[in-house]
Amino acid sequence: MKILVINGPNLNLLGVREKGIYGSQNYYDLVKEVKEKGKALGTEVEVFQSNSEGELIDKIHSAYGEFDGIVINPGAYTHYSYAIYDAILSVSIPTIEVHISNIHKREEFRRKSVIAPACVGQVCGLGFKGYGYALEYLVDMISA
Amino acid sequence: MKILVINGPNLNLLGVREKGIYGSQNYYDLVKEVKEKGKALGTEVEVFQSNSEGELIDKIHSAYGEFDGIVINPGAYTHYSYAIYDAILSVSIPTIEVHISNIHKREEFRRKSVIAPACVGQVCGLGFKGYGYALEYLVDMISA
Amino acid sequence: MKILVINGPNLNLLGVREKGIYGSQNYYDLVKEVKEKGKALGTEVEVFQSNSEGELIDKIHSAYGEFDGIVINPGAYTHYSYAIYDAILSVSIPTIEVHISNIHKREEFRRKSVIAPACVGQVCGLGFKGYGYALEYLVDMISA
Amino acid sequence: MKILVINGPNLNLLGVREKGIYGSQNYYDLVKEVKEKGKALGTEVEVFQSNSEGELIDKIHSAYGEFDGIVINPGAYTHYSYAIYDAILSVSIPTIEVHISNIHKREEFRRKSVIAPACVGQVCGLGFKGYGYALEYLVDMISA
Amino acid sequence: MKILVINGPNLNLLGVREKGIYGSQNYYDLVKEVKEKGKALGTEVEVFQSNSEGELIDKIHSAYGEFDGIVINPGAYTHYSYAIYDAILSVSIPTIEVHISNIHKREEFRRKSVIAPACVGQVCGLGFKGYGYALEYLVDMISA
Amino acid sequence: MKILVINGPNLNLLGVREKGIYGSQNYYDLVKEVKEKGKALGTEVEVFQSNSEGELIDKIHSAYGEFDGIVINPGAYTHYSYAIYDAILSVSIPTIEVHISNIHKREEFRRKSVIAPACVGQVCGLGFKGYGYALEYLVDMISA
Amino acid sequence: MKILVINGPNLNLLGVREKGIYGSQNYYDLVKEVKEKGKALGTEVEVFQSNSEGELIDKIHSAYGEFDGIVINPGAYTHYSYAIYDAILSVSIPTIEVHISNIHKREEFRRKSVIAPACVGQVCGLGFKGYGYALEYLVDMISA
Amino acid sequence: MKILVINGPNLNLLGVREKGIYGSQNYYDLVKEVKEKGKALGTEVEVFQSNSEGELIDKIHSAYGEFDGIVINPGAYTHYSYAIYDAILSVSIPTIEVHISNIHKREEFRRKSVIAPACVGQVCGLGFKGYGYALEYLVDMISA
Amino acid sequence: MKILVINGPNLNLLGVREKGIYGSQNYYDLVKEVKEKGKALGTEVEVFQSNSEGELIDKIHSAYGEFDGIVINPGAYTHYSYAIYDAILSVSIPTIEVHISNIHKREEFRRKSVIAPACVGQVCGLGFKGYGYALEYLVDMISA
Amino acid sequence: MKILVINGPNLNLLGVREKGIYGSQNYYDLVKEVKEKGKALGTEVEVFQSNSEGELIDKIHSAYGEFDGIVINPGAYTHYSYAIYDAILSVSIPTIEVHISNIHKREEFRRKSVIAPACVGQVCGLGFKGYGYALEYLVDMISA
Amino acid sequence: MKILVINGPNLNLLGVREKGIYGSQNYYDLVKEVKEKGKALGTEVEVFQSNSEGELIDKIHSAYGEFDGIVINPGAYTHYSYAIYDAILSVSIPTIEVHISNIHKREEFRRKSVIAPACVGQVCGLGFKGYGYALEYLVDMISA
Amino acid sequence: MKILVINGPNLNLLGVREKGIYGSQNYYDLVKEVKEKGKALGTEVEVFQSNSEGELIDKIHSAYGEFDGIVINPGAYTHYSYAIYDAILSVSIPTIEVHISNIHKREEFRRKSVIAPACVGQVCGLGFKGYGYALEYLVDMISA
Repeated sequence: MKILVINGPNLNLLGVREKGIYGSQNYYDLVKEVKEKGKALGTEVEVFQSNSEGELIDKIHSAYGEFDGIVINPGAYTHYSYAIYDAILSVSIPTIEVHISNIHKREEFRRKSVIAPACVGQVCGLGFKGYGYALEYLVDMISA
Repeated sequence: MKILVINGPNLNLLGVREKGIYGSQNYYDLVKEVKEKGKALGTEVEVFQSNSEGELIDKIHSAYGEFDGIVINPGAYTHYSYAIYDAILSVSIPTIEVHISNIHKREEFRRKSVIAPACVGQVCGLGFKGYGYALEYLVDMISA
Repeated sequence: MKILVINGPNLNLLGVREKGIYGSQNYYDLVKEVKEKGKALGTEVEVFQSNSEGELIDKIHSAYGEFDGIVINPGAYTHYSYAIYDAILSVSIPTIEVHISNIHKREEFRRKSVIAPACVGQVCGLGFKGYGYALEYLVDMISA
Repeated sequence: MKILVINGPNLNLLGVREKGIYGSQNYYDLVKEVKEKGKALGTEVEVFQSNSEGELIDKIHSAYGEFDGIVINPGAYTHYSYAIYDAILSVSIPTIEVHISNIHKREEFRRKSVIAPACVGQVCGLGFKGYGYALEYLVDMISA
Repeated sequence: MKILVINGPNLNLLGVREKGIYGSQNYYDLVKEVKEKGKALGTEVEVFQSNSEGELIDKIHSAYGEFDGIVINPGAYTHYSYAIYDAILSVSIPTIEVHISNIHKREEFRRKSVIAPACVGQVCGLGFKGYGYALEYLVDMISA
Repeated sequence: MKILVINGPNLNLLGVREKGIYGSQNYYDLVKEVKEKGKALGTEVEVFQSNSEGELIDKIHSAYGEFDGIVINPGAYTHYSYAIYDAILSVSIPTIEVHISNIHKREEFRRKSVIAPACVGQVCGLGFKGYGYALEYLVDMISA
Repeated sequence: MKILVINGPNLNLLGVREKGIYGSQNYYDLVKEVKEKGKALGTEVEVFQSNSEGELIDKIHSAYGEFDGIVINPGAYTHYSYAIYDAILSVSIPTIEVHISNIHKREEFRRKSVIAPACVGQVCGLGFKGYGYALEYLVDMISA
Repeated sequence: MKILVINGPNLNLLGVREKGIYGSQNYYDLVKEVKEKGKALGTEVEVFQSNSEGELIDKIHSAYGEFDGIVINPGAYTHYSYAIYDAILSVSIPTIEVHISNIHKREEFRRKSVIAPACVGQVCGLGFKGYGYALEYLVDMISA
Repeated sequence: MKILVINGPNLNLLGVREKGIYGSQNYYDLVKEVKEKGKALGTEVEVFQSNSEGELIDKIHSAYGEFDGIVINPGAYTHYSYAIYDAILSVSIPTIEVHISNIHKREEFRRKSVIAPACVGQVCGLGFKGYGYALEYLVDMISA
Repeated sequence: MKILVINGPNLNLLGVREKGIYGSQNYYDLVKEVKEKGKALGTEVEVFQSNSEGELIDKIHSAYGEFDGIVINPGAYTHYSYAIYDAILSVSIPTIEVHISNIHKREEFRRKSVIAPACVGQVCGLGFKGYGYALEYLVDMISA
Repeated sequence: MKILVINGPNLNLLGVREKGIYGSQNYYDLVKEVKEKGKALGTEVEVFQSNSEGELIDKIHSAYGEFDGIVINPGAYTHYSYAIYDAILSVSIPTIEVHISNIHKREEFRRKSVIAPACVGQVCGLGFKGYGYALEYLVDMISA
Repeated sequence: MKILVINGPNLNLLGVREKGIYGSQNYYDLVKEVKEKGKALGTEVEVFQSNSEGELIDKIHSAYGEFDGIVINPGAYTHYSYAIYDAILSVSIPTIEVHISNIHKREEFRRKSVIAPACVGQVCGLGFKGYGYALEYLVDMISA
């Protein structure tokens, strides 16, 4: 079983910026935590990050026939990228949308996801752990 | 550590109705799964269900000083009960909103939660497992 | 054959309030007229009234396996109770929505019913007789 | 007593089109059922159909001083013909709006009637029977 | 003369929660202040609180023929309970809406009251004193 | 010089309906007043009325090369007939929109004219006299 | 009989600005034309102009008991001055709103008048002549 | 194979009006071009034009069982005629919507077609040729 | 202690206009009642009225360092004067907004105050007494 | 003559995904069909596909001075890419927008194209053939 | 060369109010900085401030034929004064809109300027310096 | 001190396209003018352009720790790229948004910037000079 974890724009700057909010954990800590969770679940996990909408779509396409599930944090593309929405529909791979923070507590525009209707479900506000829950759910779902 | 799990209107009919969609699992299976998860996490879990907005608010109030966390599936109240939103703010207990189905894939009115801004986060579309992830996150968060 | 007639908030005050508008007919007259219509149609009719959204939902649930049809006048809940909408969907009992007055001639907010999409149909503006037509239709529909 | 029954655009195609949905009953069956109901109620009934908004208005005008009540199914004009709304107000004849299907379960645009505020009431979703209830109500109302 | 003071959802938690904001005054202090004001005005005052929309409506109904005026703080129901709006209209008792805080300075959804159009007037942002002014106005109005 | 005066749906019922509002003046009085005004202005005036949107458009087309100006009261078509708007643009004849009543004092939907942007100007609320002013303006404008 | 003609902001610049559009006619020409029309109608006419909303309201107030009718071109205040709307209602003097250009052919914001519902009627797009028609109508109306 | 080409309101004035824009080609040129294209495609083509919504619906109905495909340019009815939308659905004949100009470059109201969802597809902005492409597509589709 | 009472546009006409509604009490009665209330509360009160938005702002500015509290009835400016909103924020003097009538029972546009968010609170519908309650609250608040 | 055919995001997956819907025709079949059509029309055709908004813009720019026309299927970028809209305006090359499916029959968001106003026209719902019609139109238009 | 700098409502209170935010710089410092910038640019600068919409319009009018450019900070009038918008259009003097703070970071209502479309451009968020840049641009533009 | 100047989509085509509007100045002239301004201000300036949203984000990220300020003209991304908004927030470098033309005078969609709330301020309509003012402000701000 192989799961692809995709992080969208600006997530690479985790831990560099605004340490007061996010603490000392940076993007590499996120990657590490996600990979360890994958190992614990006995599944292969690849983690990919890009700030480019096109590259994110290319990556989703490349998952076709290669991966059994996708965990995606589309960053700000969440709120307008119908192209990513289409990409997920195209490959028909079970996908879970994850957000580190509670998008309902922030700016109004963050409360609507145009991508979520193409996904199995959505997890937000549960920090890095949200990725773990998504992985765990996918492993269970695919194994079932 | 004690966590309160609250289920809102119509969740009591799980498994009775529309078996084609939900399979043979009914509300008692949900309660059982949630309680077992609590046991596995070493935390006391009480599960409560009501179809009444007022009783749900009363229950949230009663949690004040008694429980360390709340997991809530507000059912259809999710979309208009500012009173439940206020109740969660009033007691200041960390709360996670859970939905069994992906609310973003259904009727338009289900895509907006008026309660989520009062919560730590939201999990939807991950079935009964969503309750488990919420419990797990709360246990970790409260222990930290 | 058994049909449940449910009246929502404030309908109990019929005939007490605003006699200039509603004449001398009060809630008991409505109940009587509905029951007589049931008798004439050869069907058992139970009439229930509550001002509580939760109790209305409980009553709808209790109809599951007990009643063959529901006639509901949800009063002001018509315009925002997605929980009652869900309750009707849950029990899958044929339901007709009735309003005594023409809701299209009054305040703007009364023109939208969030419950009607869960029903077989809707009758409004035909006074107490609207209940009778709904009963008659259900009896014919269930007998067919 | 004379009642005019008016059917708007496309209703003439009932039973010709989409038999899977509407069964073998066509427009002539509707006319027949309506007329028989009139006979049973002891009232004269004329049934008129046109696809033209102007002809529908002309017909409503011609009812002035000739008919005691109107039953109208304005078809798709329901949703934008303020001219028919004005016509009904102009002749001041008690009018009931009828729809065969439940307009609240279909496309969003069908949920708003611009004509209903000019009517006594509205019946929808009760099939051909809706016409009968409207006739019955008008006969009772006019006789009273 | 008898006046009914009704408090809606979450007001019972005053003084328990968020002391930093509300100081040491709790719900019992509010009740006491209101009753003392009533005594000073020479009017009998009953104070009622419930988190249930249905119970609030029941209470309003029970005031019919028993009370001369109503002071109501509908809490979050202010913003969506058309059923409470209808209840006030039904009993035709002069009613004043009160809010402890200035609802115009808080979340956007709090700026619209669906209940105020059924009331004599509205007072907001004047703390516990708002109840006193409402009582005073009602006593003057009823005595006049 | 020839001017065409066009009246849309329901204007033929003037004076028949709602005499309390419109007094004893009926449609024939309107026609007479308009024709006399034409005579006084030394211009030939034809008055046309139809309840049919298509006939109104046909009439506007027929004015091409035949009439020097148009005065139109589109009745309720004012608010949605983009087809009449197009017809006026097509023939490029100076046109003035007239309404007998003040459309801004009535139902909200009457406040927007989709036809006015194709016209020279609009007169409303000045009764039958509005037609006269429109005729006078057109005569002056065409003579200039 | 005395009629007050009020011109709002920027109308004083007529003829100074944009001669290409408005020709050689300036504000003084407008005043002269209006006064001559008044003379021809045998009515006293005062013409007032101000760019200040407050002064326009003061002037409307001063008309109370002094003038029999008002013709007002509120300029851009047309679109937001609820205070002028209230002023017209306060003095209860028959008022007609006039616009030189066709406000329906220009920017979207110019299509809505918040003042028109307080007026007898509205004339737009008929140039300086619009004032004359308004005067004429008022003289007839007041004389009647 | 027989295809019906329907042109809605104002299209008959092509080439008469606004020659600066449309050149010397008039409605007869359009009819001729469409018929020649039909001949080239080996299909029988009937061309119909009306300014009346009702006649357009009648024509669509009459195509039932007579024609294999419809090409329709509904003119301004495109933007509000739900009745034509229903007519196309009723007869279940493959239909293509055509507009001579690019409706997206003109007034905002022209950008939404209420009819297109009942069609196979839509062609706009390609001049008279758009009809030809629609014919060609239908011939291929029906032959397939 | 000194409190400034500011009345906006059209309030000067109280008692002159629409006596049927407001009775024999005019603006001078209001001023007198407010001043007497001030005397009773032992505070100096200045009452100011203007129809000009600019003068109202100037007056608010002039209160800086001179007055301890402001009671303002902004009349129709309530609904659009962001400039008055800014003025109140600028001087940071505790301000209470008052309306004589219940603004929620009137035209839709009156239901939104753009000024209230800059105030301590708002009182509406309690007639002249509303000013008294506002004064009383300010005196208590400032003394505290 | 040279024409550039541009395909946006996810079109590369044609025929790989959802074969039930699209049949056995994949993206290479589309490219082949388009190129053959070009050959038949005697024009050189280059076909380009990218999932990246930036690359699509770069390609449009590169067409400047190189290509005589553009056929573009912007995929989901159709609905929000004002940058592609600007790119087409910048190079001033005649462009036709094509969609394989009828975008009016799908999700609501697909009904609005922000790119179409920069194009000559739009073809949708006519499958691969739509590209051919667009090519044909451009060849005729450029040759003219 | 002469440039008029106009400051709208509440700007006179700069430095008096909220020193924590604006520091020790008051309105006179702003005037001084602007005048010095003018001197440095070799242009005569007049600075005007008023809280009255009417006076601001009068001042803009008075600039006609007297000034070569205008720099305006319309304060809160920015968001609703179509009358100022018209005034700028009337005098046809190149005008630049300036805001001291970033209006996009504050209340939602501040994000839309109804005046900017009448201006050459807009500068916001650059503090007092914004005025300097506007002056510099106008000097360059007028000299060119 | 180092400042990064970023130009978004289509700006590279300046001077190539629409010379009638933009004159003979092309993108290289812009780059030159910006660099010379930097030299004059004694600050190092790097100018970057890309049509790709992802590359613009990458460039903003790369500025972290390298540049002291950013001047950005996001082109059409201004109106929907929440990802660029997030990128600016992430790096916390003072940023000024610049537009060459007055975005308030063009299409409606250009009037809203989703990026401006992340910036210090915004300059529009002042041509190439806008970049210079932004640079100057940043230099002053950073030096302060």
